[in-house]
Amino acid sequence: MGIIPQSALLGHNGAMNADVNTLPIGVFDSGVGGLTVLKALREELPRENLIYLGDTARLPYGTKSPASISRYASQATRQLQEQGIKLLVVACNTASAVALDTLREQMHPVPVTGVVEPGAAAAVAARPGGSHLVLATEATVRLGAYRRAIHERDPDAEVRELACELLVALAEEGWRDGPIAESIVRRYLGELGNPPHDPDSVILGCTHFPILRDAIASAFDQAVVIVDSASTTAAVAREQLQSLAIVNGQDSPGSLTLLATDGATRFARVGGQFLGEDLAAEDIRVVDL
Amino acid sequence: MGIIPQSALLGHNGAMNADVNTLPIGVFDSGVGGLTVLKALREELPRENLIYLGDTARLPYGTKSPASISRYASQATRQLQEQGIKLLVVACNTASAVALDTLREQMHPVPVTGVVEPGAAAAVAARPGGSHLVLATEATVRLGAYRRAIHERDPDAEVRELACELLVALAEEGWRDGPIAESIVRRYLGELGNPPHDPDSVILGCTHFPILRDAIASAFDQAVVIVDSASTTAAVAREQLQSLAIVNGQDSPGSLTLLATDGATRFARVGGQFLGEDLAAEDIRVVDL
Repeated sequence: MGIIPQSALLGHNGAMNADVNTLPIGVFDSGVGGLTVLKALREELPRENLIYLGDTARLPYGTKSPASISRYASQATRQLQEQGIKLLVVACNTASAVALDTLREQMHPVPVTGVVEPGAAAAVAARPGGSHLVLATEATVRLGAYRRAIHERDPDAEVRELACELLVALAEEGWRDGPIAESIVRRYLGELGNPPHDPDSVILGCTHFPILRDAIASAFDQAVVIVDSASTTAAVAREQLQSLAIVNGQDSPGSLTLLATDGATRFARVGGQFLGEDLAAEDIRVVDL
Repeated sequence: MGIIPQSALLGHNGAMNADVNTLPIGVFDSGVGGLTVLKALREELPRENLIYLGDTARLPYGTKSPASISRYASQATRQLQEQGIKLLVVACNTASAVALDTLREQMHPVPVTGVVEPGAAAAVAARPGGSHLVLATEATVRLGAYRRAIHERDPDAEVRELACELLVALAEEGWRDGPIAESIVRRYLGELGNPPHDPDSVILGCTHFPILRDAIASAFDQAVVIVDSASTTAAVAREQLQSLAIVNGQDSPGSLTLLATDGATRFARVGGQFLGEDLAAEDIRVVDL
């Protein structure tokens, strides 16, 4: 049992829980993109129980206003809070960029991890003093969240940010590679100048983008480091559980609960590609926020 | 003054209105795509006052469940109903396919026009007994709304329906033509078989698609009739106003009010392309449903 008072971890439903350590980790995203983070969490922490909520009724967040994004993120967080969780992972770059402080207040003293800070830390560690290119949604770029997080760690770093909204729909459609995906990536990169100078690292600043990794890598002339915040976020989550001594000690594999606010059939079809395993509509429970 | 009781047209705010004929036509869409219909209405009925509501906070509708789409459409309709309108145009194919009957009940006795029936009628008129290809969103295709509307008018017609979700994002990004747009259209058409036999008519079954008309036309080997429901819907709206004798007799050009549920800046930037004129964020009033 860690430093978090057990009462804070029981959720609003008042259910008694013998051991906080067995409570699930809550993972929240605007849709199915965050399943790339869920996949990394399962690999990093195979014994943890996980509960995932995709706010599919209101996706995408990336083109919406900060006020709407904050309100939606807060409602989704409340849903997970009521289930009783020991850690919240905000697996959506847009929500992390816009609403992380609000969600930390709401969840206090339960810890909250976003995806922006782990991604920025990984990029700086890979290429100190380097040149970073952030591919993200409009809202994430507008807020300059990656730029700030990188410069806090490395004031000498060069940071460019590029809104690539169409890549979200491309990933959702499952058109992962081939000439269409590559042309779209190249056209976005063309907005950086012609010819653009290649960065040292490319940060996948949207959880939809890891499944487009090959198409993105192929658009650069030389080899670049591709930073995917999914695995670094999972590592941060493990460190948090360890430092708070709330690791699940059970021997068996952790359970997985999937919640969505709309469209179980589509969630299963598209989400399976992100999670890397087949899903059926019956695996997903639809909840109203 | 027409056959609709004036009391039914005054809206819930109870404001007295000297002349029903001067009340605006309400136009509703999930986002900015419906501005192609608004543009056609302005051309067809330049003296009518128009009020447009784009539910940008919850777009896109095309990937969501019928229950969510109905609820959203009903809330948006209530907002327009409260302003006092004499005709509702549902300028969203998905909402027309899913919720038209519900919205007609809700607005009764105020008339309601969707975009599916005018589009189907125009296709049948252009190519009686022909072969029609409907390009639309997932939800519109799943419901087979165009297939039904065409077969009611022409039982011998051949109808194929193709969900082209990525075209919505492409139109929103404003990438109207060029090799990327054409490749995406060709890839979708490839799903019809290889080589697909060209249809007689192609129905643009999503209000986002008219701005992609050139890219769509170029993907066919032979000339096809492109049916855009915007202009046919505007013609139906004019006929309805005439048959009910509620045409606006004023001499001056009609007013235009633009409402959105989120993101005035993005609405102005993207919407300007659909409306065919420059918009500023100050032109759009953000409302909460």
